[in-house]
Amino acid sequence: MTGAIIDGTQIGEQIRAELHDRVAELVTQGFRPGLGVILVGDDPASAAYVRMKERRCADLGMHSDNTTLPSDASERDVIAAVDRLNRSPDVHGILVQMPLPAHIDSRRVIQAVAPDKDVDGLHTVNLGRLMAGEEGFVPCTPLGVLELLKRTDSNGLSGAEVVVVGRSALVGLPLANLLMQRGIDATVTVCHSKTRNLAEQTRRAQILIAAIGRAEFIRGDMVSDGTIVIDVGINRVDDPSKKRGYRIVGDVAYDDVAPKASAITPVPGGVGPMTIAMLLQNTVTACERITRSR
Amino acid sequence: MTGAIIDGTQIGEQIRAELHDRVAELVTQGFRPGLGVILVGDDPASAAYVRMKERRCADLGMHSDNTTLPSDASERDVIAAVDRLNRSPDVHGILVQMPLPAHIDSRRVIQAVAPDKDVDGLHTVNLGRLMAGEEGFVPCTPLGVLELLKRTDSNGLSGAEVVVVGRSALVGLPLANLLMQRGIDATVTVCHSKTRNLAEQTRRAQILIAAIGRAEFIRGDMVSDGTIVIDVGINRVDDPSKKRGYRIVGDVAYDDVAPKASAITPVPGGVGPMTIAMLLQNTVTACERITRSR
Repeated sequence: MTGAIIDGTQIGEQIRAELHDRVAELVTQGFRPGLGVILVGDDPASAAYVRMKERRCADLGMHSDNTTLPSDASERDVIAAVDRLNRSPDVHGILVQMPLPAHIDSRRVIQAVAPDKDVDGLHTVNLGRLMAGEEGFVPCTPLGVLELLKRTDSNGLSGAEVVVVGRSALVGLPLANLLMQRGIDATVTVCHSKTRNLAEQTRRAQILIAAIGRAEFIRGDMVSDGTIVIDVGINRVDDPSKKRGYRIVGDVAYDDVAPKASAITPVPGGVGPMTIAMLLQNTVTACERITRSR
Repeated sequence: MTGAIIDGTQIGEQIRAELHDRVAELVTQGFRPGLGVILVGDDPASAAYVRMKERRCADLGMHSDNTTLPSDASERDVIAAVDRLNRSPDVHGILVQMPLPAHIDSRRVIQAVAPDKDVDGLHTVNLGRLMAGEEGFVPCTPLGVLELLKRTDSNGLSGAEVVVVGRSALVGLPLANLLMQRGIDATVTVCHSKTRNLAEQTRRAQILIAAIGRAEFIRGDMVSDGTIVIDVGINRVDDPSKKRGYRIVGDVAYDDVAPKASAITPVPGGVGPMTIAMLLQNTVTACERITRSR
């Protein structure tokens, strides 16, 4: 058997179709959800991401507000741009495109975003709300993983044994906190570089989530038959056969693991496309909360 | 064999002795750590706790600032009292004694405390800092559990298999997040009411932490030989043989579990005395941070 492929591209499209209706409903009430994006510098990959976000907003009938600052912009300039978006009534969600140039402290910039517009979910207040089980914003990649699981696992997440490998503040930790919340109710173990007998832990998993940042780290002998495998990794490995000289692989050795998995995300085309769908979803949610509070 | 008893009363005394020196050092630099406590109403148990905190502060040479409000004080009154302490240069840590009367929203009062004086560690910003691995305040009970473990387990916590039963925002979740942090490095599983085969999970634990709030819930057959057992529970059970009509028991069936444990906390006298020691420690730390930033 080879596991079902969890098609993040297709699920992302479904979600955008659902969002299209929510945006239309908001527009009839006189609100147009708006995403404000700040790009610092001229990294071509970052610029391409920002253009894609702008295009996706337009497709859904959302407003977007893009600010591009030169690569030598000061931290103060960036925070001033954030502050303008904090105050703009047309902007409901704010994204600062990462990475920022090295002379800027990313944490300080993220903390400058108004928590109720922090659709990236990275502000300390939103991480705290997540732990406390309060309404806030969940970071986009963890939220995308949850959506993939909800739309994949017919047995449900409640009580399921989930093993998360990786404990980053961006993915592993918020994801673990999200999955153990009331109403989701997974039994979650977080493993990391200091974990003894990692393979014993991963073989216990009914759902295994790899968010380590090491190319093809999870091998077939670390996975039990029938496991659902979610691969959050995006790693470049040299590949002279490719025109650009590298290819993108996940944290899971796909060909080795897929035959044992009951379902598995490919890389690319798994978690990646969900991240932007969740950014748009958080922005629509931010706008809905504002209409609700009026 | 019967496990070693982890004596929280004695470890709490040790910690207070260490704090005594840190306070003396601060005083020579012209800073006296101060704890501000707000008590609303006249619940005798709460009043007794507050008096004990005041006495402990005095013993260490710390300043204390107690505000007592009547039980019909409004939320606004309580927040005004918090705000006075936020602005007082003599107060480095603030504690609002729980529970508050039912007409007051505790979450709103906690959010009114300045995060850098929130020595109870319950403010959303401090929960977020904990998840992000940033400097803040860790809630007193989880921090007390960590201290007990550090002073008990000669094998160290790094890589140890920890199972936390219970996922409250006050204990279970911050404790799990704390133990999995870099530098502590435990491999943590959080179990709860929806966990399937709970006994299988608890039997895997090298360190088992019960924070469920159900009297004597963890039985001997749920624990493997040699486990370190930490009991966070404080439950009243009827006991006509006692003058007051009840006795206090933990979440662990002590007599059943102790023979299998390599070390175990009693209730009372285990985690309980650590909570107040950690409150004092957080207050001294808050004062040290202020001197450091000058």
